[in-house]
Amino acid sequence: MFLGTVRDDGDVSAIEYFAYEAMATQEIARIVSDAEAQWPDARVMLQHRLGVIPVGEASIAIAAAAPHRAEAFAACRFVIEEVKKRLPVWKKEMAHGA
Amino acid sequence: MFLGTVRDDGDVSAIEYFAYEAMATQEIARIVSDAEAQWPDARVMLQHRLGVIPVGEASIAIAAAAPHRAEAFAACRFVIEEVKKRLPVWKKEMAHGA
Repeated sequence: MFLGTVRDDGDVSAIEYFAYEAMATQEIARIVSDAEAQWPDARVMLQHRLGVIPVGEASIAIAAAAPHRAEAFAACRFVIEEVKKRLPVWKKEMAHGA
Repeated sequence: MFLGTVRDDGDVSAIEYFAYEAMATQEIARIVSDAEAQWPDARVMLQHRLGVIPVGEASIAIAAAAPHRAEAFAACRFVIEEVKKRLPVWKKEMAHGA
């Protein structure tokens, strides 16, 4: 299980996430099925939040289950890396007091 | 976060875990501090259950948090591999109907 949380990089109070939801949903399904094609014993779940997410809260959760831990780790890592490369989600940092 | 669950390998209904608890607790602390020495930005938590654990339930939970995901994945993976190598915990499979 991987949780990506909004990091306090200095003055950031929150991050606002935007997406073309139809495209993003389709790309998530593709990433999950690419992972399950590469690791057929693995089952993968991926959830991305949109909108304003305060520092400390999770913006993305990925769960990968497999009979052997190597596959679970590999599938989980693959999914987060592909999300960063391929998912049409943009973000805007929101500063304290802004 | 890594959860190791008891797998249904055919006829297994549960696994019973045994440990010299004082030794195991000490070794867990060493593994965690080895991980945090190797990835100084990471914080690691490890919990191992003992006794009878039914199929499908988790026997071990490892949480690794770090500012960057590469460290979190590496520290989490290191900890589960070291646990399998170093932790003085033994197990006994319990069959259905036994």
